[in-house]
Amino acid sequence: MDSLSFFTSLFEPRAIAFIGASTSPAKWGFNILHHLFRGGYDGPVYPINAQGGDWFGRPMYRRLADVPGSADLAVIVVPKEKVADALRDCGAAGIAAAVVITAGFGETGAAGRAMEEEVLSVARACGIRIVGPNTMGIYSAYPRRVRAVMAVSQYQPGAVALISQSGNLGTSIADRFIRRGIGMSRLVSSGNEADLTVEDYLDYLETDEKTKVICLYVEGVRQGGRFIETVRRVSAVKPVILLKGGIGTVGADAARSHTGALAGSFAVFRAVCRQANVIIADTIDEMVDIAGLLLSQPEIRGRRIGIVTQGGGLGVLSADLCEAVGLEIPPLSDRVVEMLDAYLPPFWSRRNPVDLVAPGRVSMITDSTAALLAHEDLDAVLLLGLGYLTCRATHWLDSPVLPREVMAEPAQKMIDGEKELVELIVRQIRQFNKPIIPVIDIIGFDEPGERNIVRKLDAGGVMAYSSPERAIRALAKAQTYYSRRRNRAGKTIDENSRRAEEAPGVLCAS
Amino acid sequence: MDSLSFFTSLFEPRAIAFIGASTSPAKWGFNILHHLFRGGYDGPVYPINAQGGDWFGRPMYRRLADVPGSADLAVIVVPKEKVADALRDCGAAGIAAAVVITAGFGETGAAGRAMEEEVLSVARACGIRIVGPNTMGIYSAYPRRVRAVMAVSQYQPGAVALISQSGNLGTSIADRFIRRGIGMSRLVSSGNEADLTVEDYLDYLETDEKTKVICLYVEGVRQGGRFIETVRRVSAVKPVILLKGGIGTVGADAARSHTGALAGSFAVFRAVCRQANVIIADTIDEMVDIAGLLLSQPEIRGRRIGIVTQGGGLGVLSADLCEAVGLEIPPLSDRVVEMLDAYLPPFWSRRNPVDLVAPGRVSMITDSTAALLAHEDLDAVLLLGLGYLTCRATHWLDSPVLPREVMAEPAQKMIDGEKELVELIVRQIRQFNKPIIPVIDIIGFDEPGERNIVRKLDAGGVMAYSSPERAIRALAKAQTYYSRRRNRAGKTIDENSRRAEEAPGVLCAS
Repeated sequence: MDSLSFFTSLFEPRAIAFIGASTSPAKWGFNILHHLFRGGYDGPVYPINAQGGDWFGRPMYRRLADVPGSADLAVIVVPKEKVADALRDCGAAGIAAAVVITAGFGETGAAGRAMEEEVLSVARACGIRIVGPNTMGIYSAYPRRVRAVMAVSQYQPGAVALISQSGNLGTSIADRFIRRGIGMSRLVSSGNEADLTVEDYLDYLETDEKTKVICLYVEGVRQGGRFIETVRRVSAVKPVILLKGGIGTVGADAARSHTGALAGSFAVFRAVCRQANVIIADTIDEMVDIAGLLLSQPEIRGRRIGIVTQGGGLGVLSADLCEAVGLEIPPLSDRVVEMLDAYLPPFWSRRNPVDLVAPGRVSMITDSTAALLAHEDLDAVLLLGLGYLTCRATHWLDSPVLPREVMAEPAQKMIDGEKELVELIVRQIRQFNKPIIPVIDIIGFDEPGERNIVRKLDAGGVMAYSSPERAIRALAKAQTYYSRRRNRAGKTIDENSRRAEEAPGVLCAS
Repeated sequence: MDSLSFFTSLFEPRAIAFIGASTSPAKWGFNILHHLFRGGYDGPVYPINAQGGDWFGRPMYRRLADVPGSADLAVIVVPKEKVADALRDCGAAGIAAAVVITAGFGETGAAGRAMEEEVLSVARACGIRIVGPNTMGIYSAYPRRVRAVMAVSQYQPGAVALISQSGNLGTSIADRFIRRGIGMSRLVSSGNEADLTVEDYLDYLETDEKTKVICLYVEGVRQGGRFIETVRRVSAVKPVILLKGGIGTVGADAARSHTGALAGSFAVFRAVCRQANVIIADTIDEMVDIAGLLLSQPEIRGRRIGIVTQGGGLGVLSADLCEAVGLEIPPLSDRVVEMLDAYLPPFWSRRNPVDLVAPGRVSMITDSTAALLAHEDLDAVLLLGLGYLTCRATHWLDSPVLPREVMAEPAQKMIDGEKELVELIVRQIRQFNKPIIPVIDIIGFDEPGERNIVRKLDAGGVMAYSSPERAIRALAKAQTYYSRRRNRAGKTIDENSRRAEEAPGVLCAS
């Protein structure tokens, strides 16, 4: 869309003017500039400070007019009284987009609102579109990394876009992405949305080829109709996961003083989002869990789940949870039981969940997952208890009680076995084009370096979960999304998706 | 209680016979023995193996009769056909308690059940009380560390006891305790409960001075009346947190084949547990969150919460969540607003949640928490966004863009500031005898070594949470427990606890 061309200046700037550069570590004008350099942006950055001088070896220019080249994007961190003038300078310099970090506008009351109006009218007069004001900044991964954000984390490039009406909540979500190996395409802290609103960003992300999944933190929308029309359209193309703030009465008041947004009735909002096939996340963690699952697994075609567990209790709890969120744990067919009888020791459970009772060989696990995925009545496999073999091997190798020369061989065999297991799982997901959702024992998350099974799965593009509950909730919500999308696309409604559609609301809080 | 004296042999053995020692790393008889030695047990351990030989330098005895001393406890890992004989040997040797690791009994069907009956009658004839069979083992921290368990983790001594009807789920819970710095007094994987049942362990734990909080994973109880009578009695003295498996139809079937337990109706079970003031945890993570809160914070006297946040969005979401679980976010009194006006910059929110908007000084945070705790209308404070200053400092120090000599001083100031903040929080909790629940930014959890704020809080005895949701859910359930306990103790029912008692069921799934 041509009307979205200013987004190229915002997310793909060839050069950046940084207005309000500071050498004082306490200032935002220091930290965001630091992050821009440290983030690896490879185009020119022009720091501007009315006093001139240098920023740790880099020249600071007194005025935008002094910089030796042109810029596409301005990041503005000057005091609020000077923002309008900065925008006028940007207009004169032919800059098409500005991130206005500066706060103290509409969120503070009537005087601030008036000042925000003035800033907006200046921006419009100069033909500049603005992010903010009162924003933590933006990150863009492609084609070059623009890390113009107050958050201290080094984001990784990837396929999730995050639009947040709260800077600190955006930071909190984005940090969870880092922790779980999920890269981002774009991040916007949308601030007061004086000009660009969450709907505008969605318009851009709809056709942004780098973005596969969109996450939103929303406290309130001013154009309800446009919001719903937009998320409905975008959801038909790529998943939109939404976390809503300001649901309760105190939270709604706090939201009003935070970004000036009107929260409205959550019941109504939720109902229309559900109609629009938006995935509603109940918590910050859940948003990240769902995004990772959508990115790392094939489309889930129905809600019938096979469970493979290395011990009883986790299988029991997982079956409980699946039922509670509207997933099914169908019985195994005679053919599958027969197949598994050939591979598994006599004491295996002979039911779904498939309980391997501390399997002696890793092939018992992959034989089980393969048999279940080949089963046409199952849509996905939940695989519980990975990472334990490697932890046991480490416990042997670290032991002051055991001679290392005796333990080295069996330990290495277990480490290699579990590594091979991970590779097989990654391959089976592609081969069967069905999800295998791995749940790693919590101690597996702490395994250092090379041995870490979570990192190995990350490298294979597969998200691991630290508890069955988190995996199952994410699976249920992803399944509902796909099912509704297929139905609305007017394709043949198969039996599974019909059932999923008829399933009670437990599938989502959506 | 004298009838419980065999528990002294079980949890406080002066010497241990290990029947079924193995030098093969694939065997349970190898691993559990390894863990016993590695766990730091400082009494004599007598490994017994019919072939004799040595276990990496330690002698293995052919028969129990050959060991050079007496033992209080036997750990039995021999094949199932030999368990009865092993118990007879134990009886002859005067051993009063045995942990029967061996599986293949009641959980496998009619033949196994018959064999289990025989084992039980031998044990009774010999005067031995048994844990199991089909158990992962036990851990006891006091007075000497008995780590007779298949799990590979090094448990830390502490005040939580965990009784689990599933070995792998017990492991999963216990590993989360380690991860969150929570120590255990006792751990029992109760297995098939042929002899000792969950009710027996509860009887012991009721008066065990080392245990302050009790966690239970239960799939089914055979003596429903005794179970409820016991948890009611124990809950009046110390909190009992229960996670229930086998709630759904598939899960209940799986539980039956897992430990042979009948799951029964969860609705009924939950109702009677609620009556007995048992805290019902909905997930593994939640069990750990609640236990940590009960251990590390003063009693919560009501449900009125003050929130202090360093940014808007987390405050909004937290207020939403508090309302959803039945906690209150009361308005601030004029006096508190006046007090805070003196400390805080002009743009602070002047409401609850107290939004400090990226506070410049740590004293702004501690002045806020102190003002709120001094407020007689508030029962606890939720403190959001700790750890960020230290992460920012680290980001400066690690930066290839910034000169280290310039950054060293401001970075150290921030690190020291946040360290001091943590110390002040720990002190304020004691001073006001009210909880301050710290929520740490997720990146703060990854900060290495000395700088890690989570470890600093752990060292101060205060549990930190990685998300507001987890903190708030734990807080709500702990508050309900205390409120009901006060009411049932017949003490004056103050206004807060009356309201909490009348609050809707959202307080718990209980």
